[in-house]
Amino acid sequence: MNDKTFLMIPGPTPVPERVLLDMAKAPIPHRSAEFSKIFDEVNEDLKWIFQTKNDVFIFASSGTGAMDAALSNLINPGDKVLSLVIGNFGERWAKIAESYGAIVERLTVPYGEVISPDALKKRLDEDINNEIKIVTLTQSETSTGAVNDVKKLCKIIRNHGAISVVDGVTSVGAMDIKPDEWGIDVLVSGSQKGFMIPPGLAFLTASERAFEVHRQCKYPGFYFSWSSYKKSLAQHTTPYTPAINLIVALHTALKMLRAEGLENILARHKSNAMLLRKSLREMGLKLFVEDDEKASYAVTSVYPPEGISVADIRKILKDDYDIIVANGQNDLKDKIFRIGTLGYISERDILMLVSALKSTIQRLN
Amino acid sequence: MNDKTFLMIPGPTPVPERVLLDMAKAPIPHRSAEFSKIFDEVNEDLKWIFQTKNDVFIFASSGTGAMDAALSNLINPGDKVLSLVIGNFGERWAKIAESYGAIVERLTVPYGEVISPDALKKRLDEDINNEIKIVTLTQSETSTGAVNDVKKLCKIIRNHGAISVVDGVTSVGAMDIKPDEWGIDVLVSGSQKGFMIPPGLAFLTASERAFEVHRQCKYPGFYFSWSSYKKSLAQHTTPYTPAINLIVALHTALKMLRAEGLENILARHKSNAMLLRKSLREMGLKLFVEDDEKASYAVTSVYPPEGISVADIRKILKDDYDIIVANGQNDLKDKIFRIGTLGYISERDILMLVSALKSTIQRLN
Repeated sequence: MNDKTFLMIPGPTPVPERVLLDMAKAPIPHRSAEFSKIFDEVNEDLKWIFQTKNDVFIFASSGTGAMDAALSNLINPGDKVLSLVIGNFGERWAKIAESYGAIVERLTVPYGEVISPDALKKRLDEDINNEIKIVTLTQSETSTGAVNDVKKLCKIIRNHGAISVVDGVTSVGAMDIKPDEWGIDVLVSGSQKGFMIPPGLAFLTASERAFEVHRQCKYPGFYFSWSSYKKSLAQHTTPYTPAINLIVALHTALKMLRAEGLENILARHKSNAMLLRKSLREMGLKLFVEDDEKASYAVTSVYPPEGISVADIRKILKDDYDIIVANGQNDLKDKIFRIGTLGYISERDILMLVSALKSTIQRLN
Repeated sequence: MNDKTFLMIPGPTPVPERVLLDMAKAPIPHRSAEFSKIFDEVNEDLKWIFQTKNDVFIFASSGTGAMDAALSNLINPGDKVLSLVIGNFGERWAKIAESYGAIVERLTVPYGEVISPDALKKRLDEDINNEIKIVTLTQSETSTGAVNDVKKLCKIIRNHGAISVVDGVTSVGAMDIKPDEWGIDVLVSGSQKGFMIPPGLAFLTASERAFEVHRQCKYPGFYFSWSSYKKSLAQHTTPYTPAINLIVALHTALKMLRAEGLENILARHKSNAMLLRKSLREMGLKLFVEDDEKASYAVTSVYPPEGISVADIRKILKDDYDIIVANGQNDLKDKIFRIGTLGYISERDILMLVSALKSTIQRLN
């Protein structure tokens, strides 16, 4: 059917009708008291969902823009960066660091697995001269559906003294993450994920420790410079023209999220993901991340049943049931498919997906 | 009245209802044939409005993001940049260049005036060792309403051999600019201007000469790297999640613009600006840029009548007539006000503004 498509990919995620309609209002001028009022409320609500007392900067960019902004504001050429790589997005951190002239060492595990805190501790203990300046990591790895224990890993990084830079793109608003309490120095996320709005905004929060390192950065860039955003935020505005309509959409979405309550939001993501995993197992499907304790609540990766292709499953789900699920990425393409349960997704949607997937597989058998 | 606000500022500009409603459609997945079809059409239409055969890259960012992307992809620390400064946005080029370690020389004129081609030629003739690698300039200077003769200036720059980097943020789609024919190496613009959509997208086109310099750039950054966008464009997509809904909006807006025709669009902007200038003069008002030949068709700066404040004029226009005009920026704040005639503005809107401004001034007298 036309206009019936339902997104169960790890982004973009479904957007509530109320948010879409508010986004469609004629743009208001961004240098106005009216906009600043909305902007201030959005900033308060972002601190709430990011569970931090620090500023959360809003960039007009995609999530990768915030990842770029995280490292370009910290790295001088020749700096040593340790990248914990459990999938494509962990690898993206390493590539960004390299693009700014960092010497990058990767701590890699087979995709689907996560970084062992002991392995990280061992590596950092060896760094007796504190040469490693930055450690990058991912909470919910979108390409695999595995989840690092960010709390434990960041504690080890803080004890070593390096700056921790965390990708929370598909985890903020879906899984618990507490930058201030867990000692995370930089945390980024993107709008088309747990925030229930379309892509085009990205978020970054940085600790005072990270700002100290930022102040030593020789060429922190211009558009994404933390200092500019910090200065403007104190004046209730952005340094450059914000994506006004997306911020208005975010304002509405965050009010909806606050009304639901953070504990409820996180519980909903957990119970939806666990219901999905249980249902997939009952269908005899094999999960890419088998351990529930290491599984993302945002995205679940599944192997197709023997003799059935990922392409066929995705095609029938799309053509006959108007449901979009994601293929695997890179080496995992056509080996797994990925089901997003992030953002504006209810238990009803899980039941619907499971039911449609059952019919799809029956038809393909 | 509620929701009656009419924007006559140099951005954001009014957005057609049809564009707003298309933007409000549920986001479609960006890695899909459906999105690629829209994306390809948008890219063709962008080449048309940019009057170039080269690619036009679409960034999820504000216009300043594209300005940053212009210079971060070209500059190595220590490079010499000549910045032609006729207002705040000319100065922004200089600041961005400095943020990447360039040695910046400014050729400055009093705000409201423009760069004399002879003065530029004289300076570049003195550069006998071709030390100046990049020259930055602005076509329509949004802070003053003055317009550089980009055609003449870029010819001089091309003869010298430097790379010309032009801010077309408030001129593309409003005033004639022909990158290929005039020898412009890099040209940038932003979505909330002549493109009739809300802020959040920015555009950049670069010549093959500029790409040669880009390939020598040691740290061109990650999110804005030209090479990534070029590679993805050939695959009908973007390297990172695009601002999907804004691209759908742009698709609709560009179709409307193509239906009007480029010659008609440029003629409309010219005749609207000239009608406004004539009407303001008839009211006895003094224009900040007196010479029509040096005046922008996107924004017109005006002094308030003696004894009347800019603040009072803007307040009555806003409160009683629901029209927003812009204040001056920085040193020009409260000295001039600026009327935008860019984008989705018709002759009817000019008549309306002139009439409301007359009533406003009569009441203040």
